[in-house]
Amino acid sequence: MTSSDNLVRNQGVTAPLGFRAAGIAAGIKATGKPDLALVVNEGPECAAAGVFTRNKVKAAPVLWSQQVLTGGRLRAVILNSGGANACTGPGGFQDTHATAEELAKALSNWGTETGAGEIAVCSTGLIGDRLPMDKVIAGVTEIVHEMAGGLSGGTDAAHAIMTTDTVPKEAAVHHHDKWNVGGMAKGAGMLAPSLATMLVVLTTDAVATPEQLDSALRKATSRTFDRLDVDGSCSTNDTVLLLASGASAVTPSQQDLDAAVLAVCDDLASQLMADAEGVTKRVLVTVRGAVDEEQALIGARAVARDSLVKTAFFGSDPNWGRVLAAIGIAPIELEPDRISVSFNGNPVCVGGTGAPGAREIDLSGADIHVVIDLELGEGEATIRTTDLSHGYVEENSAYSS
Amino acid sequence: MTSSDNLVRNQGVTAPLGFRAAGIAAGIKATGKPDLALVVNEGPECAAAGVFTRNKVKAAPVLWSQQVLTGGRLRAVILNSGGANACTGPGGFQDTHATAEELAKALSNWGTETGAGEIAVCSTGLIGDRLPMDKVIAGVTEIVHEMAGGLSGGTDAAHAIMTTDTVPKEAAVHHHDKWNVGGMAKGAGMLAPSLATMLVVLTTDAVATPEQLDSALRKATSRTFDRLDVDGSCSTNDTVLLLASGASAVTPSQQDLDAAVLAVCDDLASQLMADAEGVTKRVLVTVRGAVDEEQALIGARAVARDSLVKTAFFGSDPNWGRVLAAIGIAPIELEPDRISVSFNGNPVCVGGTGAPGAREIDLSGADIHVVIDLELGEGEATIRTTDLSHGYVEENSAYSS
Repeated sequence: MTSSDNLVRNQGVTAPLGFRAAGIAAGIKATGKPDLALVVNEGPECAAAGVFTRNKVKAAPVLWSQQVLTGGRLRAVILNSGGANACTGPGGFQDTHATAEELAKALSNWGTETGAGEIAVCSTGLIGDRLPMDKVIAGVTEIVHEMAGGLSGGTDAAHAIMTTDTVPKEAAVHHHDKWNVGGMAKGAGMLAPSLATMLVVLTTDAVATPEQLDSALRKATSRTFDRLDVDGSCSTNDTVLLLASGASAVTPSQQDLDAAVLAVCDDLASQLMADAEGVTKRVLVTVRGAVDEEQALIGARAVARDSLVKTAFFGSDPNWGRVLAAIGIAPIELEPDRISVSFNGNPVCVGGTGAPGAREIDLSGADIHVVIDLELGEGEATIRTTDLSHGYVEENSAYSS
Repeated sequence: MTSSDNLVRNQGVTAPLGFRAAGIAAGIKATGKPDLALVVNEGPECAAAGVFTRNKVKAAPVLWSQQVLTGGRLRAVILNSGGANACTGPGGFQDTHATAEELAKALSNWGTETGAGEIAVCSTGLIGDRLPMDKVIAGVTEIVHEMAGGLSGGTDAAHAIMTTDTVPKEAAVHHHDKWNVGGMAKGAGMLAPSLATMLVVLTTDAVATPEQLDSALRKATSRTFDRLDVDGSCSTNDTVLLLASGASAVTPSQQDLDAAVLAVCDDLASQLMADAEGVTKRVLVTVRGAVDEEQALIGARAVARDSLVKTAFFGSDPNWGRVLAAIGIAPIELEPDRISVSFNGNPVCVGGTGAPGAREIDLSGADIHVVIDLELGEGEATIRTTDLSHGYVEENSAYSS
């Protein structure tokens, strides 16, 4: 990513060459809103990589897609909202398999010869219920017919994976060497249901091997989606996929590929944080001066997950003592007397004790940047999070019932 | 603790022989409510033990009391609400020291020869502000004069350490061999301020060495207060002290001492959970069938801390999928397909998938018992927690400002 590259937000998975996409209402959601999305890689290549939830309780589509991805190839991704298909037993896994088989058949009929073993499946919604398979299967046939070229198909797909998201999330980078990366995302908003499942599909028309894609994707997700921590929960369904068509015929360096994938992921992560219905604050927690980056990350995450810090921010309360207490229980090296903290650039704690005027800092704006300096080393990391609001409690206490 | 022993709730630190206590309003709290408490051991012995917060950011009184306790002796404990004296630098530590010195002087004048090195200090309230030392010092002299024999002094003390607690918390065990254990506690309610600081003072008239007291106290706290987890936060000021006067002249076995201290701690812990202003549910999370007790505890704590589980319970929503997802990210051994979950005895998940009728379970009552069976071994542990309510958000977003 250099200054001559171009990051845009109104283009997504169909920004790179060689991809088609669609989004439709298949009747999976009771509301009748769009709930089925498709992304197809028309090649000439179909290398792919993916990262998945670290939850040991994995939804059927995660188990399926992980298995498919061992081959390093993906021809298509089918995604549904309206049901997570998690904790649904062997029957749920058969539903995922049947969905992939049905799509392979429909795509082959449409002229793109495909097997179920090249199709990833993603689901999001309430945990524990089987999907209405009659509607899913009918939808799969319909959506293949809806596939459009151009950008609109990508945007339709981004709409169809939304749950409590209020806006679709897309981003694309056009590299000056004439290759592109695009992506769409849903979830992780404060009020996102069923553990804020995050689904992301990234596409590129670069020429790249599955290993190169995997390397770029892991580096990017570790610095972006892995550092977005709304409530410490980790979904059964989280999935991030990267598909390469090779249609640009350009083979970028690993470094350039890394940078472009990172830029798209970073922008999508910021969109996920921003679209947090009911959330009143966007909070960045930076720990610097840790002995290394890993410890900085652990410390920042501990503060970002602390309910008392998050409720204080909801109240625009510069209660820096809670930040000290939260970092103090993180399993990292620190010396309490060396810790300094600032809120939006205003020192509130210096050398472990309060700074003059700390209780008068104005945090009434929507953005709060907490910087905690441990003064021990060079390690630095930032977590994106939110406040803990009445809206969070309201939406999450009334979702399934 | 046998059936012939007697657990009572309206007696506390003065239930055992050899202790006096008092509680007064010293003007530390702006509200004028009681804010200074004293417990004095009149002997003949003064063995003692203590456990303290594991937070690396420790309040001045914690640093002081830890140092004092290395001697294994305590003559008195002075406790204040209205200010945590945490993150207050060397000046704050000097304030604690001066408080102990002043109390030693006042007690010596009163006829109980004492040095500051035999006096523990506890504080609770907002982090980051210095205490109004003129009021504390004047209060120390006054409270020594207020010391009463009998039970009422203990109850006055239990009142004076309250912050957002709505009721004082006391418990005592009268052993049939004619020795006693008593105790008082504050904090850990859902809405307790400044990290729900938990202060507990336990007394006994048994004859016991500091080592025996330490052993009994650590065993008891690990199974009671350490398993009360309201919001995952850990205060800078948490302190649990056990003082022995030897005034009964009875030397109980370690096993009997352990059992009596455990019984008092367990009862106080249940009172702490119950007095959670704004909390609508009392929640027990049991993990059984883990490979060992330690893993069961880690699993139960992960579920008890999960914001999405806790908001679902606030909404009386039997959203068992969130329980599966929460246990799935705990760093313990588990096999998703073997996990079973029940709510108040009703199966909601069997073998990793939903049980019939799971979504119709009535959780509208105030008590919810979640049992998660991993079916791997014999490990079992229970955490006491609460729901995540609007009240929690409201109180904790508006405390210091």
